[in-house]
Amino acid sequence: MQHHVTDGQSGPEPLRDPASLRRLLSPRSVAVVGVSADPIGFGARSIGNLRNFAGPVWAVNPKYAGQELHGFPCLGSIAELPEAPDCVLLALPRTGIMPAVEACIAKGAGGIIAFASGYGETGLADRIAEEEALRDRCRAAGLPLVGVNCLGIVDHVLKAGVTFMPEYQRLTAPPGGVAITSQSGALGYALMQAAERGFSVCHMTTAGNATDLDVCDLAAYQLSMPECRAVALAVEGLRDGRRLALLGEAARQAGKPIVVLKLGRGEAGAAAAVSHTGSLAGSAAAWSAAFRRAGMIEVEDFDALLETAGMFAKAPPPMASGVAIITPSGGAGIMAADHAEALGLSMPQPMPQTEAVLRSAIPDFGAPRNPCDLTAQVASNPASYDACMEAMLTDPQYGCAVMPVVYSHHASTQLRMEQLRPYARKFGKPLLIAWIPEQLEGPGAVVADSVPELILFRSMRRLMNAVRLWLEYYGRTPPAQVAAPAGLDAALAALPGGEAVLMEAEAKALFAKVGVPVVEERRATTAAEAAEAAAGLGFPVVLKLDSPDIAHKTEVGGVKLNLADRSAVEAAFAAIMASARQHAPEARLDGVLIQRMSRQGVELILGARRDGQFGSLILVGTGGVQAELWRDVALDLAPVSPARAEEMLRSLKGFPLLDGFRGAPRADIAAIARAVSAFSVLVAEAGPRIEEAEVNPLICGDWGCLAVDGLVRCGA
Amino acid sequence: MQHHVTDGQSGPEPLRDPASLRRLLSPRSVAVVGVSADPIGFGARSIGNLRNFAGPVWAVNPKYAGQELHGFPCLGSIAELPEAPDCVLLALPRTGIMPAVEACIAKGAGGIIAFASGYGETGLADRIAEEEALRDRCRAAGLPLVGVNCLGIVDHVLKAGVTFMPEYQRLTAPPGGVAITSQSGALGYALMQAAERGFSVCHMTTAGNATDLDVCDLAAYQLSMPECRAVALAVEGLRDGRRLALLGEAARQAGKPIVVLKLGRGEAGAAAAVSHTGSLAGSAAAWSAAFRRAGMIEVEDFDALLETAGMFAKAPPPMASGVAIITPSGGAGIMAADHAEALGLSMPQPMPQTEAVLRSAIPDFGAPRNPCDLTAQVASNPASYDACMEAMLTDPQYGCAVMPVVYSHHASTQLRMEQLRPYARKFGKPLLIAWIPEQLEGPGAVVADSVPELILFRSMRRLMNAVRLWLEYYGRTPPAQVAAPAGLDAALAALPGGEAVLMEAEAKALFAKVGVPVVEERRATTAAEAAEAAAGLGFPVVLKLDSPDIAHKTEVGGVKLNLADRSAVEAAFAAIMASARQHAPEARLDGVLIQRMSRQGVELILGARRDGQFGSLILVGTGGVQAELWRDVALDLAPVSPARAEEMLRSLKGFPLLDGFRGAPRADIAAIARAVSAFSVLVAEAGPRIEEAEVNPLICGDWGCLAVDGLVRCGA
Repeated sequence: MQHHVTDGQSGPEPLRDPASLRRLLSPRSVAVVGVSADPIGFGARSIGNLRNFAGPVWAVNPKYAGQELHGFPCLGSIAELPEAPDCVLLALPRTGIMPAVEACIAKGAGGIIAFASGYGETGLADRIAEEEALRDRCRAAGLPLVGVNCLGIVDHVLKAGVTFMPEYQRLTAPPGGVAITSQSGALGYALMQAAERGFSVCHMTTAGNATDLDVCDLAAYQLSMPECRAVALAVEGLRDGRRLALLGEAARQAGKPIVVLKLGRGEAGAAAAVSHTGSLAGSAAAWSAAFRRAGMIEVEDFDALLETAGMFAKAPPPMASGVAIITPSGGAGIMAADHAEALGLSMPQPMPQTEAVLRSAIPDFGAPRNPCDLTAQVASNPASYDACMEAMLTDPQYGCAVMPVVYSHHASTQLRMEQLRPYARKFGKPLLIAWIPEQLEGPGAVVADSVPELILFRSMRRLMNAVRLWLEYYGRTPPAQVAAPAGLDAALAALPGGEAVLMEAEAKALFAKVGVPVVEERRATTAAEAAEAAAGLGFPVVLKLDSPDIAHKTEVGGVKLNLADRSAVEAAFAAIMASARQHAPEARLDGVLIQRMSRQGVELILGARRDGQFGSLILVGTGGVQAELWRDVALDLAPVSPARAEEMLRSLKGFPLLDGFRGAPRADIAAIARAVSAFSVLVAEAGPRIEEAEVNPLICGDWGCLAVDGLVRCGA
Repeated sequence: MQHHVTDGQSGPEPLRDPASLRRLLSPRSVAVVGVSADPIGFGARSIGNLRNFAGPVWAVNPKYAGQELHGFPCLGSIAELPEAPDCVLLALPRTGIMPAVEACIAKGAGGIIAFASGYGETGLADRIAEEEALRDRCRAAGLPLVGVNCLGIVDHVLKAGVTFMPEYQRLTAPPGGVAITSQSGALGYALMQAAERGFSVCHMTTAGNATDLDVCDLAAYQLSMPECRAVALAVEGLRDGRRLALLGEAARQAGKPIVVLKLGRGEAGAAAAVSHTGSLAGSAAAWSAAFRRAGMIEVEDFDALLETAGMFAKAPPPMASGVAIITPSGGAGIMAADHAEALGLSMPQPMPQTEAVLRSAIPDFGAPRNPCDLTAQVASNPASYDACMEAMLTDPQYGCAVMPVVYSHHASTQLRMEQLRPYARKFGKPLLIAWIPEQLEGPGAVVADSVPELILFRSMRRLMNAVRLWLEYYGRTPPAQVAAPAGLDAALAALPGGEAVLMEAEAKALFAKVGVPVVEERRATTAAEAAEAAAGLGFPVVLKLDSPDIAHKTEVGGVKLNLADRSAVEAAFAAIMASARQHAPEARLDGVLIQRMSRQGVELILGARRDGQFGSLILVGTGGVQAELWRDVALDLAPVSPARAEEMLRSLKGFPLLDGFRGAPRADIAAIARAVSAFSVLVAEAGPRIEEAEVNPLICGDWGCLAVDGLVRCGA
């Protein structure tokens, strides 16, 4: 974990031990409470989904006690069950839940699932309290709860469809490496429907209101399943965003990637952020930073979630970064190259020995290059097809092969998919099938979706983006420990004890304590003192009004630039005081700050704000007056190491400005990165005591960097 | 047409008259030449695809003359056909084509289709010549040709599958409003496969090498079909890009939209562009500009092409711009809102009377807002469902309704799709089905894909992007006539007769002739003359070296800024001459240019270059030294009207800089737009005589705009 420091707050609630959830989420017996004779009721649909489950299944309904209901034995109450059930599904309305919970506790059930809605999601105080009481009771009794307001869970290995999703029992696809966890029940169902086309899933959970277990607990359980190779996670929000880091750590330990989609990416949440920094750092960006920090792989489209998770479940780590494109159609090859190029993927040309093989096999209307247009002629000639595939997959430049499929006719497409499987096994390089036909579930697609050797995408954009994510994921360096800067304790001790705004001088003094270079300045209360201080700093200087009551100094005539000598300083002092008295007669005027005119350089903005979900966030961006216009910023959770700070700087569109743009000297990147890191440690360690902090501009050059202005808003 | 002016070049070849292609593309009889007994040969596959075609079909092969072949009568030669065939499909290798063409001409065939490859696409000179000879013969004889190197055509109204695509005869979907034209045969086939899932297509053509007919001719034919409502066009390249404008005009006259995908969007083509302007304007951007100018709708993903064309075929013009989202699932509603917000679509809240209906129908765990979360409860209650649908669709703010479908179970999903159809008919607002389940061809999807009232998308991103395109398309103002500026003839007359580079003074003089304001300047050859000129212009001034041999004046010490009086000018003159003589002893030194220091303002860049495909292109962007960094440019074909120029300016990220950014005065947008338009008319009228032109910077303020530097590269 990168957070070696704590901010004095209690840490997030630990993830639930997967072993304690096994009876609930991979049950050996299931009771469904509230099954009626109505075949389309929630209870009947749910118990019907257990038709292929091997363990005992009981219906519970006093009305039908002793009878058979939808093919299952029905008992009069939970207490009458012949044994303690692993999983109890409560297909009951809200009012029936609490008594059933007590019965489950008394019976020693392994856990419960509740579909019932009408709790906290209504926003009504009594319903919120009712949900809290439910959570408290379940937790006190050690009875884990999935829901409320959820769609249930599926253990597809056990064929345990403990869910009211329609027709689960029809899904005959064998279990595979992807586990699904979705906050939204409907979206979990929609993902699970991939099994209808052969896509292999091992487990699905839906968190609903996450009254007890949230998506982090549920996904962590899935990581513990031996069948699981990757998790597809769809999340809307979390009560405590810091649990993502715990889940990320569990994934790292399990060696299983988590592919995640954030729903609710809109900027409405960012409207609450008050400062300039806040307006640049929308909530979606904060979530993205948190996902990255947790080692997860973020996708931005629902339709990319499962395909990408399928790739991570099936693909070994890359052996090389080059993408080989092998196609029977020139058009599909161009399409592949377009998307690869747009994403900055490398498509090296074949090495000479590879090219020689291609040249001898491919007719003159094909292309013995990359993209390699085999032509339909080679595609239908097994010997030359094999020669080309062997040559391309042997070429050490290529880490994966993208293979567009353009024909979806019957026997031959299925056969072609089967023929490809041995190549994946032999070379250990992912074979990515780009399914081009608009017959989306055409023959052959089901093979590629279900076998472990082939990875199917129905969109070239999504395929290439997944390749980019795969290369990026396995190329990540583990987050480094962040060293505390020398003056950290002194800086923290200097923070005021409650809400306060530190204006320019105080803010810079604080930053200076942790080693951020700040422009040197003196204070003066008279014109003579100001002139003396200026002479000590060296001309030319800047004079700025020093008043705790005036934030926007320029607007009251409180800033005078480029003062070349003592007499100019004395005149400026008088002018500033006169102007301030005229514009703000009530303000306290403490005198002036005198600074040497800062050196030439590139302006960055450095900001931090406290996020309700994730703690302290840090932002670095291209600064100056146009910062809002270009919105060229990089964001991460604080603290960041100097190495990560440099990565953030390099990700800026404006980075060339620091890197010798048009013959300008290169800025001292290491010095800037150290300053960013020190600033980030300060805000992380201060925790809620720093609500917001900003350096704008941070002037950067080959001589280092210098904070010229700053502001800190302290919280309680 | 916006191009009321011509550049002295001959215009593009006119589109082929659709009536002249009817026999070939909507045949009443078909002959397939080169059918063998081999059931998987091209000929056999093709003739098999004519099984449901009502007209006469003949096989031609001397080997089987008089027999039946794959269920069709076989004749010994084209000459022996009982009548002149409408369409002759040549399933022959390259070497057999020319004799067959002669036989078709002699027989009076309506046109031919040739699959054969190995022509110009090989890059071999003799093959290129062979293809040209084929074209010349067909054209001379009035025998239109589809191909070579194509996959054939389908008239799905007539069930005429004149193509070797496998299993066309299996496609039973009724014909619908979308016509497909693809340069790539495989991609045309892949699109046509949509009929396997019920998507309705009326016609398909593949252009291949476009030896005779190109995609513009083929799509123009489809526009003439009464069944066609919209064309889906996939293009890689054109011999003459200006034909796009002709096709666009045909579409405008037919009132049928063309949705287009450009394959080969990579920037490799842009590498050939030499200037700064060129590097900012990649070839994909030129194509995009040409599509827009031609009134087409561009998509960037293959998988968006057919879905978007389906929307344009089915959706009437919008009655309002608001998007209503009506969902049974909160998660799907969030997903819809995320994508709508990211694309800047408006999602107004329901009007009070609408909201009142929703409030009375939707339970407290739903959302009587927009997105409107009906909950599963309302979705399964016909009366309250109907009340909500009526209320939302009556609300005049909404121009369309986005309806996520999250369940794909059997009877009920199909039923729900059928239930929606009357709402589309009653309100005349598009109902857009967002198909969320990963069961991509699940029950219900086939209904929505095939009926005229519902528009199905399998991706929320693609759906919302199509809505954006639909609103944008129907909101376009027709391109205005571009008036020729007063000095145009004089400017054209002043152009040199061949290759030449006009440096700063000459370039600005040229621009000034058409009314672009340029900084006032004088020439001087002595220090005294320079001082006199400066006094005439008013101080402070700039002195710039004037030499036909030195392009980069700054690098030889040839620019002195901010000269405040006569003596400063005289000193600067001497310094410039001395420095130039030292740095470039061979250069001719004509003296200096004297300019008044230009006013404060925002810097734009204005550029033009000659494109091989589309003629003269114009670019306007945020200028200054950071122009390349932000690549904030807008591009169009020249000429542009002042109104279009203003639209381009407003599309820039940097537009706020002109629009009162941070309290700065608003620039005179109308004056800038006039200058951009005048510049664009000049380069358009000059045609190939101006290869490249650039104004950088164009300084803009509330006082107008001023070209401070410029360059023109003239061509032969």
